[in-house]
Order: sequence, then C-alpha cells, then structure tokens
Amino acid sequence: MFELAPQLEADTVLIGKTPLNRILLMNDSRFPWLILVPERREITEPFDLSDHDQSVLWRESMVVGKMMKSFFKAQKLNIAALGNQVSQLHIHHIARFRADAAWPHPVWGAGVAEPYERDALRKRLFSLQEALSQQLTFEFPQAS
Amino acid sequence: MFELAPQLEADTVLIGKTPLNRILLMNDSRFPWLILVPERREITEPFDLSDHDQSVLWRESMVVGKMMKSFFKAQKLNIAALGNQVSQLHIHHIARFRADAAWPHPVWGAGVAEPYERDALRKRLFSLQEALSQQLTFEFPQAS
Repeated sequence: MFELAPQLEADTVLIGKTPLNRILLMNDSRFPWLILVPERREITEPFDLSDHDQSVLWRESMVVGKMMKSFFKAQKLNIAALGNQVSQLHIHHIARFRADAAWPHPVWGAGVAEPYERDALRKRLFSLQEALSQQLTFEFPQAS
Repeated sequence: MFELAPQLEADTVLIGKTPLNRILLMNDSRFPWLILVPERREITEPFDLSDHDQSVLWRESMVVGKMMKSFFKAQKLNIAALGNQVSQLHIHHIARFRADAAWPHPVWGAGVAEPYERDALRKRLFSLQEALSQQLTFEFPQAS
C-alpha cells in the first residue's frame, strides 16, 4: 500500500490523482508549486520506475508544466526531482517570475513558506482541478 | 545554428554528444555533475521540444542518471531543469552524497566551484566517455 511521505503530507494539499500520480499543491502562496508523486512504493529515482511508469510520468510532468506556464503566465518553469530530504520520488513543478521571492535562485530553502488563506486555497485548488481535468485522466479528491 | 549559452560554455567541459544532446561536465570537482543540452535553438522548456525530442531527452536523461548513480555510487541523484539564470534548456544531473559540500541542500548557489586539476579532469572525462559510449549513441569531442 502506497503511503505519502509524512513531510509531503504536512507541506501540501491534494489537488487530485491520475492513474499514476498524486498531484499536490505546495502550501506556500509565494510560489505556484505543484508536486507529482507516483503512487509506487519504495521508489526514490525516476529511473527506478518501470519503463511504462517512466513514460507516463514524463508525459504527465510535461502536461503539468505546460499547463502551469500558461495558467500562471510564468516566465520560467522549474522542474526537478531532488529528494535529498524526502527520498520518496516526487517531481517539483514551480512557476517562476522575475519578481518572485527567490528569483533567480531556486525556491528550496528560500525564506519561510506562507500558507494560503482558506478562500485563496479553495479557489486555487478548484481552478487547478478544472485545468488539469481537461488534460489528464483526473480523479478529484474525495470529500473528507 | 545551435550555440551553447556563454555561461554554460564557461562553466563546463564537453564530454561528448548524442544525436540530440551535448553532454557537459560541470567543472566543479565537489560534485559529480553532468548537464544535457539539447542542440535545438531557442528552447527554454522541455515541453517546447518536439514530441520526438522530448522522448529522446527523457530516455537519455534516465540513462545518464542511472549510469551516474552506479558509476559514482551516489546516494541520490538530483535531476533538474531550472534555467532561471541561463534560459537555454539544460538538464542538470548531479550525484549527491550525505557527506558532500551542500547536503541536504541543492547544489546551486552552495559555496564556490572548485575546478578539477588537469589530470583529474582528463581521467574523469575519459571514464565518463567510456561509460556513456556503452549506453548511448555517442560522439567523442573533436580534438581541439
């Protein structure tokens, strides 16, 4: 049974799922920041996935990145699999702007996260769910 | 005609080429660090490549990452397309160790690069060329 790493669980909000990935929103309103986590156990590197899962991951990563660039009118996307602190494979997708809180540096370790206000979070989730469900096989989160 | 971005040209040494990518070694002996640069003009995001080039890039990126993990006995690979400072699309592949100079943080912006000694550079290039040419369609650099 797949379980999301505790730190990812603590720092993010579930946007939805595809047949392979959980799609998470980093709860930091400073950066539009999505994370794909393949629901596969004990995988730390993308090349440890099966060939099939690798190609699904790449395809979905590109769909998410392209959607974000257009949705947020981003100046650059940062796409990265790091995993030094949380070894469970997860792929960051971050929309970057020349005026953002970390530019031109990477976002990791830059200052302190600023969680979304409740209404802003609800709106952001809703609009991202709408955008993603148009382009991916997408399952909405179950009401909790 | 494709031209490598000046900062990449300055910071790296050419390991070789595949039909799509230049494979560069970051000239920083603190981290085993390879960079793939698709030889395509005016591309800043991986999803701006053609579908064919995207799948070649992904495949070669995975081959390079897997080779590096085993070659360097790395504890983790960091794989990332950032491009905030150099917009020309380039994909970092960095072998990471719990004892390295930046762990557990990302390598970008961590301290100052320590260029390889001449002999160490020659040996590293040779061994990487040998390893890569076994797994990719690989063209050695022309003697200059």
